[in-house]
Amino acid sequence: MNTKTTVEIGKVLQPIQAGLAQVEAKMKNVESSLFAPLAHAFVDLIGSGGKRLRPTLALLAAQVYAEQSDTPLFPHIVALAASVEMLHTATLVHDDVIDGALLRRGAPTLNAQWNRGATILAGNFMFARAAYFAAETNNPRVIRIFADTLETIVNGELHQLSARHEFRQDKEGYYQRIYAKTASLFAAATEAAAVLAGLRESEVQSLRAYGHNLGMAFQIVDDILDFTGSDATLGKPAGSDLRGGTMTLPFFYFLQSHPQAEQLIDQMQASYLAAEDGDSLQWESLISQIVRELRASPAVEAARREAEAFLDLARASLLGLPASPYQRSLLELCDFVVQRTY
Amino acid sequence: MNTKTTVEIGKVLQPIQAGLAQVEAKMKNVESSLFAPLAHAFVDLIGSGGKRLRPTLALLAAQVYAEQSDTPLFPHIVALAASVEMLHTATLVHDDVIDGALLRRGAPTLNAQWNRGATILAGNFMFARAAYFAAETNNPRVIRIFADTLETIVNGELHQLSARHEFRQDKEGYYQRIYAKTASLFAAATEAAAVLAGLRESEVQSLRAYGHNLGMAFQIVDDILDFTGSDATLGKPAGSDLRGGTMTLPFFYFLQSHPQAEQLIDQMQASYLAAEDGDSLQWESLISQIVRELRASPAVEAARREAEAFLDLARASLLGLPASPYQRSLLELCDFVVQRTY
Repeated sequence: MNTKTTVEIGKVLQPIQAGLAQVEAKMKNVESSLFAPLAHAFVDLIGSGGKRLRPTLALLAAQVYAEQSDTPLFPHIVALAASVEMLHTATLVHDDVIDGALLRRGAPTLNAQWNRGATILAGNFMFARAAYFAAETNNPRVIRIFADTLETIVNGELHQLSARHEFRQDKEGYYQRIYAKTASLFAAATEAAAVLAGLRESEVQSLRAYGHNLGMAFQIVDDILDFTGSDATLGKPAGSDLRGGTMTLPFFYFLQSHPQAEQLIDQMQASYLAAEDGDSLQWESLISQIVRELRASPAVEAARREAEAFLDLARASLLGLPASPYQRSLLELCDFVVQRTY
Repeated sequence: MNTKTTVEIGKVLQPIQAGLAQVEAKMKNVESSLFAPLAHAFVDLIGSGGKRLRPTLALLAAQVYAEQSDTPLFPHIVALAASVEMLHTATLVHDDVIDGALLRRGAPTLNAQWNRGATILAGNFMFARAAYFAAETNNPRVIRIFADTLETIVNGELHQLSARHEFRQDKEGYYQRIYAKTASLFAAATEAAAVLAGLRESEVQSLRAYGHNLGMAFQIVDDILDFTGSDATLGKPAGSDLRGGTMTLPFFYFLQSHPQAEQLIDQMQASYLAAEDGDSLQWESLISQIVRELRASPAVEAARREAEAFLDLARASLLGLPASPYQRSLLELCDFVVQRTY
């Protein structure tokens, strides 16, 4: 199957190295407003953030008309890029508290409780910084995009939380969830960057569509990897979404081709209830069995085909833009996203 | 002592009744974006919000040049007023989770854990709505004020959380805390309203100073009431700030006039540590004793004099503004704030 050329992420990021460094510095510049021990913990939280994909999208989209690599960036573009990443990091920090709340059992230590309060506040501080950076763009439309997206993300999380462990769901809800969770912020990053760059409205919409579709593909790929990845690369056991009660695209395809889907769902419900009552043996073994069977099933390939379809849409959105190192990197990001699944 | 004329809050609010109703409706208009059960819980959370003092400040400040009561409001003023109240409510919702995290002992039920996650997200949803409403004002300066204030509030909460149960503190930190906690948002409400109303910069600054000083007085009064109020009016036992490890102005004055302040602090530290280890009898009885002694001490009157001094500054800030029902209400709010302590 693996006939794609391999994309190196370093090469994709090359045109925006300097910009990313500015974003990084801006995000970590909190020393003045937080006293030392907290500032340290805060920078640690930001530092463990990962791929910086969202600021990458903003920086690339803002420069699609730039003639050469590393064209100097306007400060409001850097502010936007820092804003979207800070917003993303804030939601991750709160997710940990929310997930921890669901999974952790037994009485927490007082120290852990203090940390929980501090973690909630650290997330809020990041929301505040994100709003501050968005305000720095000084562009009312960009600020509205920011506020809209924040609402979409949180609304989606509320829906996801309330839909957890409801094992009879339709697939439609999945697309709404991954739009809210991931694609909305990707789309916001590219749309807002295009607005700040002063592009024509049709180009703004094209770049928004690019971000949206790339985001949908990215989340589907993430959801595939949650089943197919090794414990080591995932940093957690495979199948953790399903174990936490969240159903994703590969599982929907798995159910679709399963000869006894209804019985399987009944079995899941029963063993989940038993786990709730303290006996999680059956639940854990059922999840492991599903992970094994799903990996060997056509569900993975079916989900990947959907990701590819979203990526085709993303690539098509770029057709009207001039060839440039930035546009090339946007195209290569599409290849990069899906190659992680092979 | 009680020689003041009594102010009726209904009379203070009379000029802005219609405006407050618009703010209320705007805050509760979430049906479309949240599915029914959550929308219901959300509106309940907002509904239990209380005095609506912050939107009151915004509406009054925005209309200081209006000729008569109930002058029609511009939508962006209503958006601002809804934004400050939503931001306030969001912080209250998160405070409950953070306080609960510190105080609750033993293993929480899974149901309580789900509620914790949902509560964090409900607070985030309110932050998002607040940001959205701020963006609706379409005024970059107002949006910057919003983002600045959010950061100040969260930063102050982080400091307060980390200073808890440090019984040797200087009074200076107290003023920073109550500015961050309360006065910053009061000041933001009046400043932003003045900006939206198109007032001269000197008037914007005067109204900001009014909000700031009123907010400082309001929080000092709240901190007095935490010691002097009855369990019934407070809805919790008197002395709960101190019991939770937060030191407020009346306690600083109490310590100042205490013949054996150092020994008392040592005693507090020891009994707090014992309470940490599970034996809270000594700690509870010490707090009860301090509450009794403090009520009978000059500390209450000393703290009230400080609140009065802030209120004098607030009143003085209004001197340059024309007489109107709105300006009169702003003046009467000063009387209202302190009369709660008699």
